[in-house]
Parts: sequence; structure tokens; C-alpha cells
Amino acid sequence: MAERYFEDYPPGAVFEGGGIAVTEAEILEFARKYDPQAMHTDPEAAARGYFGGLIASGWHTAAMMMRLFAAHFLSPASSLASPGIDELRWVRPVRPGDVLRVRVTVTKARRSRSKPEQGVVHSFAEVLNQSGEVVMTLKPISLLRCRPE
Amino acid sequence: MAERYFEDYPPGAVFEGGGIAVTEAEILEFARKYDPQAMHTDPEAAARGYFGGLIASGWHTAAMMMRLFAAHFLSPASSLASPGIDELRWVRPVRPGDVLRVRVTVTKARRSRSKPEQGVVHSFAEVLNQSGEVVMTLKPISLLRCRPE
Repeated sequence: MAERYFEDYPPGAVFEGGGIAVTEAEILEFARKYDPQAMHTDPEAAARGYFGGLIASGWHTAAMMMRLFAAHFLSPASSLASPGIDELRWVRPVRPGDVLRVRVTVTKARRSRSKPEQGVVHSFAEVLNQSGEVVMTLKPISLLRCRPE
Repeated sequence: MAERYFEDYPPGAVFEGGGIAVTEAEILEFARKYDPQAMHTDPEAAARGYFGGLIASGWHTAAMMMRLFAAHFLSPASSLASPGIDELRWVRPVRPGDVLRVRVTVTKARRSRSKPEQGVVHSFAEVLNQSGEVVMTLKPISLLRCRPE
């Protein structure tokens, strides 16, 4: 894991990494627990449905994105919390056999006025599949520790 | 499960339900798989950290929200897809022992111009804990089937 601090995330910096292989078994397991809709839990019903086959819950894709975001963008040295995310978009379905990677671009970074040892980093994260197609985008907000003096 | 269609989601309509009991075991299991940061995976490190104890990954809270959203808001009869969500905010930490419920308010509903058998519903979803405190909010967008003629 890289040791990074707020100062290591200037606007324009790009962080990339992957890939996670998406399996039917994990799609089913996640969905039966958290998103029990037939398009995510029942391959046969899904084949007849809107997407013509089983697709991952969008929240499962988000969870896999987080695994990549934690590994390739955040650093245990500085990651404090996240107040939230903006504009999450599920652009394309994620299917069994897909391999996902992430590309995160810093869009804004400002040091906290009230807590000068912390900073807030805004980014634009794209999740891509093995064909280079974007399947999900979002705008995370990250609260990060500054480099110790 | 209620049978609802686009027409059953007028602006102002409120849908509520719960509750999901959050366990330490499930917090750890989710986080080790999808969000391996010490605040979510290591009770001892978490106790010394920013939140003074183990907290659920925000994406785990989102996944539990989805379970409630699927049970109390969506209907298998009409739920087609979601293009995304706006303004997800993690307002308070979710800790072991919390019990979560959801309240979803329809904010906007419009029939599709290009596909008149479908409509798009915007809503404001709040996840509350056993003390009635809001722990997470978000603005889901849902693509729903209209009632068959």
C-alpha cells in the first residue's frame, strides 16, 4: 500500500489499478443478501428480462469499486473518512466474466480551514471493464490527513 | 411484496420500512471483502482511530439500504433499472448493534417521452438508526414500468 497524504493528491493527478474478475457466484451471493431483484438473483428470469441476462447489482459494482479505490487511490496513512459521493451513474451493465479496473482523477483539493492537519479531496472515479468500456462513474469526496511536519 | 407501478409513485408519497440489525460479524465480513480499511476491519485499531470504534463501510450501509429499498419502495412488477443516484451522504457512523430502517419520499415522477410504457422516479431516501437519527441520505433515480392498460 502506498503511503500518501493530502499533499500527494493535486488536481489532475490520476490513479489507476485493477482488475477484479466478476463471477456469477459472487453476483448471486451479493444480490441475495442486499439486492434481491430477479435481474441480479435469477439467471433464467434475468435472461428474459430488460438486460437479457444476469447483471451485478449496482451496489455490488460500487463495492468492488471501493476495493479498487482503497487499493489504488486511498492510503492507510491518511484516509480518515468520506462525507459522501456525488453523481453515481451506472452506465453499462456488469456481467459474469467481466474484469473491472478503476481510474481516479483528482478534481479538487483543499486544506481544511478549521482543521489544518486535514484536507478534502474531490475526485472523478471511472470503473472500466476488460474492453475499456466505462461501466460506472462517481464523484467521491475524501477526507485525508496532511503529511506530518 | 407490493405490486406497484410508476403511477403509484406520485411526488410526495412516502414509503417506510425496516429494520436491519447490524452485527460486528457482518461489518467485518463486508469490509474484508470490499473496503479493507482498519476502521471497518480491525476493532482494536478502530477504537484508537477517528471514530473511536468499529464502523460499517459506507458501502455496506448503502447495500443494507438497498435491501430495504427493494423491500419497501421498489416492486418486482415494475422495477426495471436505475441510471444512478445523486448526493449520497454518510451523515453519522453505523456501528454494531444499530438497527436500520429506511424512509423514501418521491420528489419527482415523469413518464418517459421516448418510451411511454416507462417512467422515471426521483426520490430522497433516508436511512435511520434505532434512535431515529439519520445515518445516510441519497437521491436515487429509478426507471419503472407503467401500469399495463
